[in-house]
Amino acid sequence: TNIAAGGLNNSSEGSVLGIGVDQELISAVPSHNPAFVSRNFTDAEVAYCCTQPSPPSSFAARWAGKEAVFKSLGVKSKGAAASLRDIEILNDPDTGAPFVTLHGDAKIKAKEKSVKKVLISLSHSETVAIAFAQAF
Amino acid sequence: TNIAAGGLNNSSEGSVLGIGVDQELISAVPSHNPAFVSRNFTDAEVAYCCTQPSPPSSFAARWAGKEAVFKSLGVKSKGAAASLRDIEILNDPDTGAPFVTLHGDAKIKAKEKSVKKVLISLSHSETVAIAFAQAF
Amino acid sequence: TNIAAGGLNNSSEGSVLGIGVDQELISAVPSHNPAFVSRNFTDAEVAYCCTQPSPPSSFAARWAGKEAVFKSLGVKSKGAAASLRDIEILNDPDTGAPFVTLHGDAKIKAKEKSVKKVLISLSHSETVAIAFAQAF
Repeated sequence: TNIAAGGLNNSSEGSVLGIGVDQELISAVPSHNPAFVSRNFTDAEVAYCCTQPSPPSSFAARWAGKEAVFKSLGVKSKGAAASLRDIEILNDPDTGAPFVTLHGDAKIKAKEKSVKKVLISLSHSETVAIAFAQAF
Repeated sequence: TNIAAGGLNNSSEGSVLGIGVDQELISAVPSHNPAFVSRNFTDAEVAYCCTQPSPPSSFAARWAGKEAVFKSLGVKSKGAAASLRDIEILNDPDTGAPFVTLHGDAKIKAKEKSVKKVLISLSHSETVAIAFAQAF
Repeated sequence: TNIAAGGLNNSSEGSVLGIGVDQELISAVPSHNPAFVSRNFTDAEVAYCCTQPSPPSSFAARWAGKEAVFKSLGVKSKGAAASLRDIEILNDPDTGAPFVTLHGDAKIKAKEKSVKKVLISLSHSETVAIAFAQAF
């Protein structure tokens, strides 16, 4: 039941339904706070971020990604509320490319808007994470 | 006569004609200067930005958005000239999502290039505003 | 033989195959190092960057652009390796808009993935360069 606007980052047909950009200061994302992390990230996301060279950067990039996906869906984010967990961003094991899977409310919203797929790209410097999303 | 590449941020068919990204230091956008503001922003944009939690951030994000739209149209911006006012970025009252309406020269340029719609997304941190635009 | 996913930044039909975003601290791109420059930039790119108001900013923006193109192709960048030179970003003399031409391995990878075109947009502030790419 977790299949949705995700899938591998390999193609997207049809019209663009929305785009979203977001940036976050890495120091502003409290990834050292277990309650924050479990409320906003799936187990698979946590497992991935914790094995990266800089877990705080990875959490922040993913956080920016979730906000960008929200914007691409044309719905307001609930900020730090549980629903950011509904937007899961994992990485293709072969290419390293991130891809989006929607759950729960985000999945329902996407269906209402006929969104079939969301593409995502992430980047971080030492201090800032940015993300771009596109919904089809 | 103000209808153009705008409309609600809800769909876009056909081929992508151009993309544009821009970033601005919020402190570099002189939104405290009334002459600058009236030359570059429409009355509706000013009304919106002045009701936001941080008007300087909102003006800067919108400024970055206008530059990104220019890039997506494949035409050079005239910098601080009047024509940035021709690219109006307002927000959907229901979703908060920004959308683009073109006027004047920008509208003419878009028509020449067969641009039917421009999607926009904005983001700002404490110090920097970024924007992404896509022309169809 | 240098024609590929490039061409003028004027249209792109068909489905979006991938998107890529990247940012670089301008001070972190060693554009004062001739070996670094010749390994990663084509002669035409060097000629362009050196005539810009701030060559380090132009090199950094182009570097971010190359990384963004790599991400849009869904392949891993080889970092500072020679292959970044295979992604050439030049500017349309009339509009100033950047466009992508792929060579060598990047061209082969793009063909394997049925990529026909890559659109690019670049931006830099005093300190940071960002880029967005989209592969069709």
